[in-house]
Amino acid sequence: MGTIPENLRDAVAKARVDVAALHAELPRWGLVVWTAGNVSQRVRGEAADGSEDLLVIKPSGVTYDELTPESMVVCDLEGTLVDGDRSPSSDTAAHAYVYRHMSDVGGVVHTHSTYATAWAARREPVPCVLTMIADEFGGEIPIGPFALIGDDSIGRGIVETLRESRSPAVLMANHGPFTIGKDARAAVKAAVMVEEVARTVHISRQLGDPVPMATSDVDSLYDRYQNVYGR
Amino acid sequence: MGTIPENLRDAVAKARVDVAALHAELPRWGLVVWTAGNVSQRVRGEAADGSEDLLVIKPSGVTYDELTPESMVVCDLEGTLVDGDRSPSSDTAAHAYVYRHMSDVGGVVHTHSTYATAWAARREPVPCVLTMIADEFGGEIPIGPFALIGDDSIGRGIVETLRESRSPAVLMANHGPFTIGKDARAAVKAAVMVEEVARTVHISRQLGDPVPMATSDVDSLYDRYQNVYGR
Amino acid sequence: MGTIPENLRDAVAKARVDVAALHAELPRWGLVVWTAGNVSQRVRGEAADGSEDLLVIKPSGVTYDELTPESMVVCDLEGTLVDGDRSPSSDTAAHAYVYRHMSDVGGVVHTHSTYATAWAARREPVPCVLTMIADEFGGEIPIGPFALIGDDSIGRGIVETLRESRSPAVLMANHGPFTIGKDARAAVKAAVMVEEVARTVHISRQLGDPVPMATSDVDSLYDRYQNVYGR
Amino acid sequence: MGTIPENLRDAVAKARVDVAALHAELPRWGLVVWTAGNVSQRVRGEAADGSEDLLVIKPSGVTYDELTPESMVVCDLEGTLVDGDRSPSSDTAAHAYVYRHMSDVGGVVHTHSTYATAWAARREPVPCVLTMIADEFGGEIPIGPFALIGDDSIGRGIVETLRESRSPAVLMANHGPFTIGKDARAAVKAAVMVEEVARTVHISRQLGDPVPMATSDVDSLYDRYQNVYGR
Repeated sequence: MGTIPENLRDAVAKARVDVAALHAELPRWGLVVWTAGNVSQRVRGEAADGSEDLLVIKPSGVTYDELTPESMVVCDLEGTLVDGDRSPSSDTAAHAYVYRHMSDVGGVVHTHSTYATAWAARREPVPCVLTMIADEFGGEIPIGPFALIGDDSIGRGIVETLRESRSPAVLMANHGPFTIGKDARAAVKAAVMVEEVARTVHISRQLGDPVPMATSDVDSLYDRYQNVYGR
Repeated sequence: MGTIPENLRDAVAKARVDVAALHAELPRWGLVVWTAGNVSQRVRGEAADGSEDLLVIKPSGVTYDELTPESMVVCDLEGTLVDGDRSPSSDTAAHAYVYRHMSDVGGVVHTHSTYATAWAARREPVPCVLTMIADEFGGEIPIGPFALIGDDSIGRGIVETLRESRSPAVLMANHGPFTIGKDARAAVKAAVMVEEVARTVHISRQLGDPVPMATSDVDSLYDRYQNVYGR
Repeated sequence: MGTIPENLRDAVAKARVDVAALHAELPRWGLVVWTAGNVSQRVRGEAADGSEDLLVIKPSGVTYDELTPESMVVCDLEGTLVDGDRSPSSDTAAHAYVYRHMSDVGGVVHTHSTYATAWAARREPVPCVLTMIADEFGGEIPIGPFALIGDDSIGRGIVETLRESRSPAVLMANHGPFTIGKDARAAVKAAVMVEEVARTVHISRQLGDPVPMATSDVDSLYDRYQNVYGR
Repeated sequence: MGTIPENLRDAVAKARVDVAALHAELPRWGLVVWTAGNVSQRVRGEAADGSEDLLVIKPSGVTYDELTPESMVVCDLEGTLVDGDRSPSSDTAAHAYVYRHMSDVGGVVHTHSTYATAWAARREPVPCVLTMIADEFGGEIPIGPFALIGDDSIGRGIVETLRESRSPAVLMANHGPFTIGKDARAAVKAAVMVEEVARTVHISRQLGDPVPMATSDVDSLYDRYQNVYGR
């Protein structure tokens, strides 16, 4: 186990507080059961290439009632434990891969939220048929590849899919959604929104076909929401 | 930023309390996620033409945990901020348009509640197949046009649709429900009820066709509920 | 307004406490929104023919947050107010009719719970395909006639349907479930169970046909549950 | 009624606390309504053949608000009451049969959770189309036989089905899920997970066919989760 550099201690302490609090949003919005799901946030080091960055993430197998700032664990961007009493989440390698390869990303969330995962099991993207999807995702919500845990496959699948999309969410095949954001809070928001729109479009599709939106309308809504509205 | 006229200060203060409290009903009944959704209430000025009226509405991008009377914002009926520390909801223009053009309306609510939005995505009205729909909506719940945010399109679509209907709810195409009432509380009730009946009729339709109700029965129920029952 | 006879005052006071508390079970189990739904309980008078009996019920249009023993209202079995500060629920006539015509019934509940109402809108009984349905309902859950509020039609429809069934629940066409029991608590239990089984069978049917149960197995389960298990 | 042997008193007292607390997880995750559902845990005696083992279980017909360590009841593995003020759950015979015939099992849970029961009513196993199913269940979730309560039929059906599967959950036909684990907590986790995956696969199937996973991938995920991840 490494040590947290002196210059990052305050930022890590703050990230522990934020990440612990944001985990409570996952059960609150019905995105997780039992101990499933995890939120992480990047803590930027001084090196411009990100090589000194750290991430704060949930420990493995801990219930949502037990999550405190102190129980959060700190890893480097290879996923190696730097500080914490417990093992990091078994999804840490995927989070770390995203941070290594997407320098703008400051937060990552993974859940198995029901409706998003249902689309993922069919490997079918969620079509952009709601103004809310245009606002938040800028088009359809894409499917990532099927990938087994244990190496870089999941992380690579997330990054390759999201690089070709405006969506901050990817539905990993037969697995569930991963979302990104400028910080953990934005990634949690995307996790909440992806489930909400996956659910709404699913329900709409049950009784017929939602009316498609014109690409120009989608672009217009996305641009306004991201720029005028000020995210 | 303007100022609130002396003669409206007490009424505005009371509306801030009411509107803040009514926002809590939206997550309570599962109508919203994250910061989505907004409730407004008209405060009537002395001018008979409504030109001095104000509206109290939720600020933009604030979570449901942070909503206090003080954080509510006050606008005139052009949607211009009159009092408040934050920007008004990005849907304020639509609320203001409704108040300018429907003088009986004292409250407006907008959500993206799941089942109502699912019907809106298919641009299909909710048929009147339940006594509860006859009571509250007096017939089918209509679809409004597809309209982009940014000008008067949404407000105009709401008003034009509701003027041709007894329903206090309109499902804006690919977007979600707007509801009206004599005050904010009545509009919130309509928002709760439109989701409930959209959900029930959706579920009923999944396994077959609900039995239609005779128009005379719908009229009889609506008249009784609105008059005898005393709304 | 009449007065409560001296000899029934303690029993009425207890029924007010019970009925107020049981109303809280309706939102708890997701059976109602806003002010919909009502629970009543009979208070037996001395006359053997029930002519002195009273019923305690929810007042009209009161939210679930405001329900206290004091706010409950007392009516005779014609539905006339005997004691209380507010109007009785607009469904009181139906409750009263049931008590007048089914002397064993001590409690009645009415909701518009979603899945039960969805079957009611199709006028399709819930088939007995679960051991839980055999236990609690002794067979399919029947549909009652379409009836308008305002006279004895609803009450008569409930009674005529339930007299031909072992089920303590009837799904009134295009309206919603009414349930009965030996007291208000048993009727609330039936209201909870009818929604639960209506939901489970609905979901099962969405992907195919539930396997029917033999009538002899249904009878055996019902007999055991009602007798051995000791309800 | 027997007595608890001196040497098991501390273990029984601890099991009462654990089993009472774990019951609260059933309504928390939406697995039960009213008084349905039960959790039990084995307390191992000194005899190597398990003949002195006891089980702690919920009493019959008690609401989830009333569950305290003191109200839990203790039975031997024939299901005979050894200690407690109330009757044991009517499902005690099934729990006891499982403990008698599966010596590794330390906890059993039974619910009628909605989606799992919906698959059970069709007598259709939940296919393994999610990584979460591979992790937790190692393949499809099997259907058990139709069995009436009152003798050993249910227990025998559970044991015979689970012995031929890696799954800790069996969906008893037209009835509902039973789950097992090394202790009551593990069985409760399996009860939560079986409902979650039954729900997700149901929803996925509503709009098409989930993509199957290769058996080798299922095996790989199961092995890793059970061994590397450390359950």
